[in-house]
Amino acid sequence: MGSPTVDLRSDTVTRPTPGMRRAMAEAEVGDDVYREDPTITALEERVAELFGHEAGLLVPSGTMGNQIGMRLVCEPGQEVLCDADAHVVTYEMGAAAAIFGISTRTVVSSGGRLDADQLIAQVRPRGDWHLTATAAIAVENSHNRGGGLVQPLGELQKLWDWSREAGVAVHLDGARIWNAAVAAGLELSTYGRLADTVSVCLSKGLGAPVGSVLVSSSERIAAARLWRKRLGGGMRQAGVLAAAGIYALDHHYDRLAEDHEHARLLAERLGVDPASVETNMVVLDDVAAPVVAQAAKAQGVLVSQVSPRRIRLVTHLDVDRAGVDRAAAVLASLL
Amino acid sequence: MGSPTVDLRSDTVTRPTPGMRRAMAEAEVGDDVYREDPTITALEERVAELFGHEAGLLVPSGTMGNQIGMRLVCEPGQEVLCDADAHVVTYEMGAAAAIFGISTRTVVSSGGRLDADQLIAQVRPRGDWHLTATAAIAVENSHNRGGGLVQPLGELQKLWDWSREAGVAVHLDGARIWNAAVAAGLELSTYGRLADTVSVCLSKGLGAPVGSVLVSSSERIAAARLWRKRLGGGMRQAGVLAAAGIYALDHHYDRLAEDHEHARLLAERLGVDPASVETNMVVLDDVAAPVVAQAAKAQGVLVSQVSPRRIRLVTHLDVDRAGVDRAAAVLASLL
Amino acid sequence: MGSPTVDLRSDTVTRPTPGMRRAMAEAEVGDDVYREDPTITALEERVAELFGHEAGLLVPSGTMGNQIGMRLVCEPGQEVLCDADAHVVTYEMGAAAAIFGISTRTVVSSGGRLDADQLIAQVRPRGDWHLTATAAIAVENSHNRGGGLVQPLGELQKLWDWSREAGVAVHLDGARIWNAAVAAGLELSTYGRLADTVSVCLSKGLGAPVGSVLVSSSERIAAARLWRKRLGGGMRQAGVLAAAGIYALDHHYDRLAEDHEHARLLAERLGVDPASVETNMVVLDDVAAPVVAQAAKAQGVLVSQVSPRRIRLVTHLDVDRAGVDRAAAVLASLL
Amino acid sequence: MGSPTVDLRSDTVTRPTPGMRRAMAEAEVGDDVYREDPTITALEERVAELFGHEAGLLVPSGTMGNQIGMRLVCEPGQEVLCDADAHVVTYEMGAAAAIFGISTRTVVSSGGRLDADQLIAQVRPRGDWHLTATAAIAVENSHNRGGGLVQPLGELQKLWDWSREAGVAVHLDGARIWNAAVAAGLELSTYGRLADTVSVCLSKGLGAPVGSVLVSSSERIAAARLWRKRLGGGMRQAGVLAAAGIYALDHHYDRLAEDHEHARLLAERLGVDPASVETNMVVLDDVAAPVVAQAAKAQGVLVSQVSPRRIRLVTHLDVDRAGVDRAAAVLASLL
Repeated sequence: MGSPTVDLRSDTVTRPTPGMRRAMAEAEVGDDVYREDPTITALEERVAELFGHEAGLLVPSGTMGNQIGMRLVCEPGQEVLCDADAHVVTYEMGAAAAIFGISTRTVVSSGGRLDADQLIAQVRPRGDWHLTATAAIAVENSHNRGGGLVQPLGELQKLWDWSREAGVAVHLDGARIWNAAVAAGLELSTYGRLADTVSVCLSKGLGAPVGSVLVSSSERIAAARLWRKRLGGGMRQAGVLAAAGIYALDHHYDRLAEDHEHARLLAERLGVDPASVETNMVVLDDVAAPVVAQAAKAQGVLVSQVSPRRIRLVTHLDVDRAGVDRAAAVLASLL
Repeated sequence: MGSPTVDLRSDTVTRPTPGMRRAMAEAEVGDDVYREDPTITALEERVAELFGHEAGLLVPSGTMGNQIGMRLVCEPGQEVLCDADAHVVTYEMGAAAAIFGISTRTVVSSGGRLDADQLIAQVRPRGDWHLTATAAIAVENSHNRGGGLVQPLGELQKLWDWSREAGVAVHLDGARIWNAAVAAGLELSTYGRLADTVSVCLSKGLGAPVGSVLVSSSERIAAARLWRKRLGGGMRQAGVLAAAGIYALDHHYDRLAEDHEHARLLAERLGVDPASVETNMVVLDDVAAPVVAQAAKAQGVLVSQVSPRRIRLVTHLDVDRAGVDRAAAVLASLL
Repeated sequence: MGSPTVDLRSDTVTRPTPGMRRAMAEAEVGDDVYREDPTITALEERVAELFGHEAGLLVPSGTMGNQIGMRLVCEPGQEVLCDADAHVVTYEMGAAAAIFGISTRTVVSSGGRLDADQLIAQVRPRGDWHLTATAAIAVENSHNRGGGLVQPLGELQKLWDWSREAGVAVHLDGARIWNAAVAAGLELSTYGRLADTVSVCLSKGLGAPVGSVLVSSSERIAAARLWRKRLGGGMRQAGVLAAAGIYALDHHYDRLAEDHEHARLLAERLGVDPASVETNMVVLDDVAAPVVAQAAKAQGVLVSQVSPRRIRLVTHLDVDRAGVDRAAAVLASLL
Repeated sequence: MGSPTVDLRSDTVTRPTPGMRRAMAEAEVGDDVYREDPTITALEERVAELFGHEAGLLVPSGTMGNQIGMRLVCEPGQEVLCDADAHVVTYEMGAAAAIFGISTRTVVSSGGRLDADQLIAQVRPRGDWHLTATAAIAVENSHNRGGGLVQPLGELQKLWDWSREAGVAVHLDGARIWNAAVAAGLELSTYGRLADTVSVCLSKGLGAPVGSVLVSSSERIAAARLWRKRLGGGMRQAGVLAAAGIYALDHHYDRLAEDHEHARLLAERLGVDPASVETNMVVLDDVAAPVVAQAAKAQGVLVSQVSPRRIRLVTHLDVDRAGVDRAAAVLASLL
């Protein structure tokens, strides 16, 4: 054989490129707990600006970014409303409740797609002393369990406009907001301005090894810094990680379009409706997931089993056109 | 004028009758923290037996009964699944998350009616290390925000059978299970046997002043006793309250049928579909709730505003036929 | 034998007297969750006034009173400082941390006696972002594990004066403050004015069956009402319990001096330094606690084993002079 | 003029050396959430072995290592006992309580020095249902607020032997255990074998930029992995950080003796009893800390203000002999 493995399990598996490693090795660093790491500060300011917010905070993971982001806008005993497949209630081990005492209530959406009215109908007012008050709504864009779908801008805008009237906050889980923005041809700030708190990941499509950034107002980020310390997310000379994030923003953002093109190619070759592929994910339904995954692995193609009947393929920086072709061939032969 | 107020806000407003007060005054008591209150012990054993469980525990409120009940079958960071209108996520101030770190995920049901398949489809397996695992499903019967509806026995049975296979626990919020059983003509144990933990209230339709009882296995109730102490729910000579509960079981259970008849009468007189009245609640929709409530109050009829467009009427021990007639007349004139 | 048991385990074991039972049976009640129970309101106002505070809240237990009291003046992640033998860290099952996320730090005091300087030396300032900030100090008076000792007024005053400067709150665990005030010949308000939040128990020396009252400012008590609901401590027609509390304040307060006299008698008869008996407790040290307790029980005298070498005797309403004599005789023969 | 700043605030301020940066740039990495990062795995195994434990887990900070370490041996509502100046209760923002519901009780020790008997006397047994049970004792070695003191091996051994009988766990906060071991001339495993869970930092004296490692049994570390994910401490290609840790173990461990020598030199030159300097810290007491710190800073020497009257100096990798001489001269002139 000899062909390298094609790893389509997730865009989290990317390894830093030589250029990124060089940036990391040369990064100017300091003790960020004293706020003396210039590279971290530069990254935080840059990401905040990209999303039209005042300040940013580097955290070790998207989970910490989301959890602190929600905590900033929701007190213990209040609730965050979101869809039942959202990453924040599905893949974060109940952290909102377990760590912060935040209640969650959910609606089953149509494949993860935001329907502002559906969520708004479930909001419980503050000030009615016996109700669990809805303090915030969390939106995920692009939506992981929704197969990488891009949330409709109109719905985001409708939710935002309503939220300003209602005094309910909006948190954006933007782990893959980069993919959404590239796919929709929109500025990051267009999304950023429709949320009070935004968590974005550097370690998914952008290809940095570690790190997420939470952005919000300066006041909220000051509070977030304390929560980060309490959770054990304060790091010292993490400028080496921030340098990778800056490099990724400089070099890996525009190229996400290529991942999307690769995903569409895979879909076409595997008989999946290309309209269902909005970013870098392809969902194969009604397949014997364990069997296919194992057989594909034997031929050097790694895929993710979302459920016993569903497989997910994710394209990213470390999968080139040749890899896509090979994966398509292997999987087509197995389906 | 001169007529006494007819209070239809809730069945929680009942006052102890002379007979019940006498029972309380004569109750044999002891220090229940040392487990030496014979009246409490008698009540706990009786309720446990009624529901076909091994042991019971007196707690100060239905909220404490539900919260400890769920905690017994769900660890911090795991989740309880229920409908989005369930009392446990709506009216308990986020206690599951705030106090116990229990995550909640919900489905929007059809007016509170249990659809076993709908819930089961949302269960997330244990053992998949990155998922928030579904440890328990909570069911409410009769359903408060569902207008007192009685859960279909077939669905309860289906959920229970599935749960045994799946290793997922079932918690029954039976605050008004008495009404459900009387309306359905079923034994309390029929419902009790389809749940791992059951919380029932003595202070609603049964008319006792204070108290709920949590029933489950002896082992779980031993643990519940510790949780009760930690929450500050351990009481000393609460046999005075338990005596009221025993009196209520002796004298106020069968008469719930009368409350249901009263509710149907109200519905008929107010043009509400009687089929929607399954127990002791009548829901008036599409009304100007604040206006109607205030006007009714001025005429001595108290009602509950569930939302700006919804009023709820609840019949109970302290509302007799004459009260029903008067309330119907007042409300009919206002609608 | 035929003599009734003399129960010196705790003053929590008292049973309501006929007069108290009558007051309970005749109590005017309402639904306190709607704040319509006049007897509860009367009790809350009376206790607040006794301690010189604005408002009060009836809760099911001293544990809930203490925990909510501390939560009112301490945020999650901040700390309460107290002595290592305080009831709030010893007998409340870690509730401050488990339920409210409140950190505790303690000093080993001299038998529970408050030494203001010792505590003040351990305070950690707020505003230093990396320290766990000391938000409150908790004081217990009289001190349970300290054998019922009465805190020196001078130390309480010194702590209070310091606390106003320092911006640190003071919580008083006044479960047995009645005993302290009677023993010291001071007004309850003298103690009440040296604390931001005070929890007092009706079910110990005062002899009511159930209930504690938390007093503080009106604003804090409004918040406490929500916490009580979240913990499941909201009760409906608990006026029956409040009536017992009012009766106890009317009839059982002054007589506490008698319990103190009984305790001194016991001490003398058992060779314990009477100076060590400040209120209603006698501590027997260097005894084979399990052996003595069992032998005494066989002769109708119940005592409490604090540790393998320590026994505690507590006098109360249900132990008269004859009981004291008999207990002294039995115990003297065993020691 | 012109001289570089001598930063004695903490040993956390070290910057990665060229060699360390090279190791980071060349590190083989993978997605550690899938456990595919060979460098992380190598580091975890190596540290576990050094301390005589089965398994290790890389976490972003010492705070996370300590907190998860304590959670592994203490349930919510149970307590950890430690000295009142321990890092875990002083500098971790109440995380044990806030995040995990763990209660803490403390003793005021003699300058942080472990006195096994003093701690043991405060232990509260499990199984007594109304006590907050002591599940674990936390020890810090070397002790930060104790001025870098090394815990006496005899006391550690005594505590350990006792703990095996008592069924109480021991957690070691070994943030600076490297300094202790070098100063005492002991193997790391000598300390490691006297604790159930050990958290050690790579980013203090060892000079790595980010990261701590928690070691314990394989079973506990498997649980720790889940807690790490819940807290948001799961990182992807953190092998770049692990590589720095491995490099630090290879190159920076033995040289800690040099830091200790530097600290002793500083002490001598500043009139501090050299016997009080056991590792890499010098404590200056009874000084006007803010004044001295600011004046020193103006001359290029940074120090840490522990309190208004106490300054702490910490030697480390980035302070050479010339720096020590200059700092001594500057500070001597100011004192």
